[in-house]
Amino acid sequence: MFKDVHLMLFVGLGLMLSFLKLYSFGGIAFNFLIGNFAIQWSLVVQGFFYHYKEGKIHLRLENVLDAEFAAVTTLISVGAIMGRASHVQLLLFSAMEIPLFVVNDWLVNKYFHVIDIGGTIAIHIFSCYFGLGVAQILYQPELRNTHPKEATTAKSDLLSFLGTIFLWIFWPSFNSVLAKTEDAQYRAIVNTFFALSSGTITTFALSSLIDGKGRISLVHLQNASLAGGVAIGITADLISPGGAFAVGCIAAMFCILGYQYFSSFLARKIKLQDQCGIHNLHGLPGIVGTLSSIVIILSGSIDTYGSSLLLEVLGNQFLENTWTATDQALGQAAAFGVTFGMSLLGGYITGLLLRLPCFVHPSKDYFLMIDSISKCQKITTANHFPMRSFMNTC
Amino acid sequence: MFKDVHLMLFVGLGLMLSFLKLYSFGGIAFNFLIGNFAIQWSLVVQGFFYHYKEGKIHLRLENVLDAEFAAVTTLISVGAIMGRASHVQLLLFSAMEIPLFVVNDWLVNKYFHVIDIGGTIAIHIFSCYFGLGVAQILYQPELRNTHPKEATTAKSDLLSFLGTIFLWIFWPSFNSVLAKTEDAQYRAIVNTFFALSSGTITTFALSSLIDGKGRISLVHLQNASLAGGVAIGITADLISPGGAFAVGCIAAMFCILGYQYFSSFLARKIKLQDQCGIHNLHGLPGIVGTLSSIVIILSGSIDTYGSSLLLEVLGNQFLENTWTATDQALGQAAAFGVTFGMSLLGGYITGLLLRLPCFVHPSKDYFLMIDSISKCQKITTANHFPMRSFMNTC
Amino acid sequence: MFKDVHLMLFVGLGLMLSFLKLYSFGGIAFNFLIGNFAIQWSLVVQGFFYHYKEGKIHLRLENVLDAEFAAVTTLISVGAIMGRASHVQLLLFSAMEIPLFVVNDWLVNKYFHVIDIGGTIAIHIFSCYFGLGVAQILYQPELRNTHPKEATTAKSDLLSFLGTIFLWIFWPSFNSVLAKTEDAQYRAIVNTFFALSSGTITTFALSSLIDGKGRISLVHLQNASLAGGVAIGITADLISPGGAFAVGCIAAMFCILGYQYFSSFLARKIKLQDQCGIHNLHGLPGIVGTLSSIVIILSGSIDTYGSSLLLEVLGNQFLENTWTATDQALGQAAAFGVTFGMSLLGGYITGLLLRLPCFVHPSKDYFLMIDSISKCQKITTANHFPMRSFMNTC
Repeated sequence: MFKDVHLMLFVGLGLMLSFLKLYSFGGIAFNFLIGNFAIQWSLVVQGFFYHYKEGKIHLRLENVLDAEFAAVTTLISVGAIMGRASHVQLLLFSAMEIPLFVVNDWLVNKYFHVIDIGGTIAIHIFSCYFGLGVAQILYQPELRNTHPKEATTAKSDLLSFLGTIFLWIFWPSFNSVLAKTEDAQYRAIVNTFFALSSGTITTFALSSLIDGKGRISLVHLQNASLAGGVAIGITADLISPGGAFAVGCIAAMFCILGYQYFSSFLARKIKLQDQCGIHNLHGLPGIVGTLSSIVIILSGSIDTYGSSLLLEVLGNQFLENTWTATDQALGQAAAFGVTFGMSLLGGYITGLLLRLPCFVHPSKDYFLMIDSISKCQKITTANHFPMRSFMNTC
Repeated sequence: MFKDVHLMLFVGLGLMLSFLKLYSFGGIAFNFLIGNFAIQWSLVVQGFFYHYKEGKIHLRLENVLDAEFAAVTTLISVGAIMGRASHVQLLLFSAMEIPLFVVNDWLVNKYFHVIDIGGTIAIHIFSCYFGLGVAQILYQPELRNTHPKEATTAKSDLLSFLGTIFLWIFWPSFNSVLAKTEDAQYRAIVNTFFALSSGTITTFALSSLIDGKGRISLVHLQNASLAGGVAIGITADLISPGGAFAVGCIAAMFCILGYQYFSSFLARKIKLQDQCGIHNLHGLPGIVGTLSSIVIILSGSIDTYGSSLLLEVLGNQFLENTWTATDQALGQAAAFGVTFGMSLLGGYITGLLLRLPCFVHPSKDYFLMIDSISKCQKITTANHFPMRSFMNTC
Repeated sequence: MFKDVHLMLFVGLGLMLSFLKLYSFGGIAFNFLIGNFAIQWSLVVQGFFYHYKEGKIHLRLENVLDAEFAAVTTLISVGAIMGRASHVQLLLFSAMEIPLFVVNDWLVNKYFHVIDIGGTIAIHIFSCYFGLGVAQILYQPELRNTHPKEATTAKSDLLSFLGTIFLWIFWPSFNSVLAKTEDAQYRAIVNTFFALSSGTITTFALSSLIDGKGRISLVHLQNASLAGGVAIGITADLISPGGAFAVGCIAAMFCILGYQYFSSFLARKIKLQDQCGIHNLHGLPGIVGTLSSIVIILSGSIDTYGSSLLLEVLGNQFLENTWTATDQALGQAAAFGVTFGMSLLGGYITGLLLRLPCFVHPSKDYFLMIDSISKCQKITTANHFPMRSFMNTC
C-alpha cells in the first residue's frame, strides 16, 4: 500500500501536472520536491500532535502513510497556482498547509465523528479550498489572457493522461487503505472501482455530447475520469455497488460542467485563476460526495452494508440511541462546513504571506521554473561533465 | 493482483496501442473506454450467467477479476481493426464479443475439462480469431497501401515498447492468478517468466539474423518478446522450467516469422488487414501453446509436476481411469477447435453487423478518432477555460 | 517483491538509460536484452554454485530473486560504457561479470560476515568498479570531446527522470527484500525511505546553491535523488531514522560534488570516460555507506535497533564475545577492500577481452546501436507488413 500511494503521489500526480509543453519537467520535479518536503514536515507535525511521548516521537510505518495523505493534500492544492509561484513560495505554501490539515483532520474526527474513509472532506475539500484561497489572493491580472508559455503538446498531454490512468488504477488502494475490517476494504475497493468506471464512461459520453461535432475533450478525459474516485471516498465502504455507480456518474457530470462553464464564470466574477481546475476535480465532486453521504445515512441504506462499521465509528452512543442517523448526517454537514471555512481562511492567510516582498520572485516571470530547470540543465551540465558539453547551446 | 491486471489492461495494452504518431492518444483513450465498457458489460453478462440468484447478481472481488479477463479478450481483438472503426462500432464490437466469450469459456470448461490456467485458448485464441473475423468483413481496399496517417515516430514507438515491458513484467501475475494452490501459482510464475525471458532473447537473436545487416526490428521487439507468455499460459502450472524455456523460444520464432512473412501473405491471399498483427502475437503462439499442452499431456510429463492438479481438474474420473491422458489431449484439441470455430463465426456475424449503414461513420475517414480527440481538444478547451484559449490554433 | 525488482530493472533502469535523444530506444532495449541474459546466466551460475545436487539444479522463486540481484549489478556496470559497445561486447561483459559477482558475494559473506542487507558493497561497489575497470581499458580518445550523437532533449530527459522516480519508489522494496524478520523489514523500508527523501531535498538545495543563478541541474536531480538509497543499503535494517536522514544527506552531497567536479577530474587525470556517471551514483555513495556502517557498529548504536539481527548474523560467537564490534567493523572494511580489488581487476581483464579484434565492431561507429535499431525499424518493417510500408523513408 505504501508503494501504491507513492506511485500515486510521484508518478500519477507528477505526470498529471506535466501537461504544459514547457513545464512538463517543472511539473514533475516540483511535485517531487514538494511531495518529499511535505511528507517529512507532516511526519514532524503529526509526530508532535499524535505520537509525542517522553520527549520522543514514536515512529511506525503507519505514520509514514498518514504523512503521505497530508502530502497528497498539499500536492492537490498546489495545482491551483501551478507555474505561477517560485520554489520558496511553494515550500512556504506547504509548510503552512500541513499543520492546518492535521488540526482540521483531528477536529472533524473528534467532534463530528465524520465518516470519510477516503478523505473526500478531509483531503479533497480541504485541499481544494485552501488552494483556491491562495490563488485568489495571488490573482495576477496579466494572466487573464493566456500566457504564451502555457501551450500543451500532443506528447505532454499524453503524459498527463498517463498520469490520470495511474491515479485511476491506484485510487481503489487509496480509498481502502484505512478500512478497519477486511470486508470494508473489499467493499471500498469494488465501490471505488465502480464509481471510477461509471464516471469514465460518463465522461466519454457527456464530453462528446457537449461538443457540437461529437468530439471528446482531452481536458475532460484527463480530469473527469477521476471525479468518481473523489466523490466515492466518503462512502466507499458503506454504499451499494449501484449507489457507487450513480455517484460516479453524477460526479463526472459536475466535473465536466465545471470545466465547461463554471471555471470561466469564477474567473470573470471573483477573479479566481484555478490553473489546473482543482475546483472541478476536487471541489465539486467533493460536494457531490458529501451530499451522497448525507442521503445514504438518512435513507438508512447504510444499515444494509455497513451497520457494523457505523457501530464501530459511533460506539455505544449508537446502541443506546443517543446518536441517531440524523445526528450523523448533521455531523457530516458540519465537518464539511468547518473544513470549508478553515481551509479557505487558511488559504487567504497563506496567500497574504506569500505576497510579502521577501518571498515574491523579483522578475515576476511566470512559469519561471521552466527556465530555472530546463535552461539550467543545459548550462550547468556543461560545466561538470565534458561528455555533454555540446549541450551548452542556449 | 487486481491492480496488476489493471496495469496490464490500461497502461500496458494502452501504451502498446500508441505506436502510431497521430493515434497515440487515440490508442490509449479508446483502450480506456472499451476496457471500462467491457468490464462493466461482462460483470452483467457473467453475473446473469453464473451468479444470478433470487433476482439479484451476487458480486465479489473475484467477479471483477473474471470481468477483467473478458475485457482483456476484447482489447486484444480490437487491435485487428485499430484506427479503422468509430467509437460506436467499437462499443458494439465489444458488446457482441463478451457474451460469446462467456459462453465459449463455459463450454470448453464444462465439456472438455480444458487445462488452460492462463487462457491461451479461452482468451488468446478466441480474441485473435474473433478480431480477424471482424477484420476480414471490414476489409477496406483503400487501406491496401499505407494510409498517410499511419506513421510512427521514435517517441510513439518508445511508448509502445514501454507498454510491452509493462505487459512483460505483469504477465506472470496474469498467468498465475487463477492457480488453485500456492505451489501451482509459484510454478506458473516461474515458468511464465522463463518462457518470456527465453522468448525475448530469441527475439533479439532471430530478428537480427533475419535482417541482412544484423539490425533488430522494433516491431519484432514490441511483439515477439511477449509471445512466450501467450504460449505458456496453457501449461504454466504443469510444465518443467526447461519445457517453458523451449515453448518461449518456439513461440517467439513463430511470432517473428508471422510478422515477417505470414502477415503479408494473408493480406494478399485472403484480404485480411490485421492492423496490430494480433494473429502473430496471439494466434500463432496460441497454436504453439495448444500443441505443447497436448505433447505434455501425452508424454506423461504432466505427472511429475502437476498430477495433483490434474487430479483436481479431472476428479474421480481420473482416479478410476475412466478419463485417460489421451482423453485429456483430445479435450484440449476439441477446446481449440470449438473456440476457433465459435470466435471466427462470431467475428463474421459481428463484422456484418458493424457494416450496417447506421453504424458506419459517414465520412469514411480512417484513423478518424485521431481528429475526434486531438483537434477537439484544441477547440473544445478553448471555449471553457480562458487560461488556455491560445490553443484555438487549428 | 518479484515484480517490484522487475519494475526497477526494466522500467526504472531502462528509462534512466534513455536520456540520450538518439539512444532512448537503444538504452531501454539493450537494458532489456542484457537484463534477460544476465538473469538466465546467473540462474545457471548460482545454480551450480549453491543449488547443485545429484546432477540437478534445484530451482525456487527465491533463486530467481537472487539472479535478479546479479542482473542489477550487470545493468549498473553497463552504464559506464553505454552506447560505446556492440551487442556482442555487452553480452560478453555480462557473461564475465556474473560469475565474479557470485564468487565475491559468497566470499564477503563467508569470511567477513559482512552486514549488507541492500547490497551497498556486494552490488553497488562491485558493479561500479567493475564497470570503471572496463571503461578505463576501453578508453576512446575520439570521445574526449562530446560526440554529436550525445544530445539529450527535454523529452528524453523527462523519460529518464521518470525512471529515477520509479527506482526511487521501489528502492525501499529492494533494500528490504532480504530482511530476515518482519521487524527488520519494516525498519529497512522506513530507513531507506528517509535516506532517499533527505537525499532528494539535499539535491534540490545543493544543486541550486552550486549554480550561480539558483537553477537546478537535471543531471543532479536524475541521479543524486537516488544516492541515499545506495548508501543506506548497508545499514537499512540497523540504523536509526535520524541516522538514515543524515546518511541520505551526505550521500547526495558526495554524488552532486562528484558530478560537478570529480568526473571531469577523473576524465582528465586517469582517462576514464564514465558515460552515465556510475562512480558518482554508486561508487561515492557506496563508500559513504560503508563508512557509515563502520561508524554505527563501533559506536554501538547498532544495539539499540538491531542487536537481535547482529546476533542472528554472528551467531554464538557474538554471545561468547569471541567476535566483537571491532571485528565486525574490520570485516566491513575488509569486505569493501576485497570487493573493490576483485571488481577492478575483473573489469580490467574483461576490458582487455572486449578489445580483442573479434569482438570489436568493425565500423567503430559510436552510439551505433542507435542506428542498428531505429533505422532498421524503418526498413525492416517495410518488408513484412504492407500497412506500414510508408515507413521506408530513410
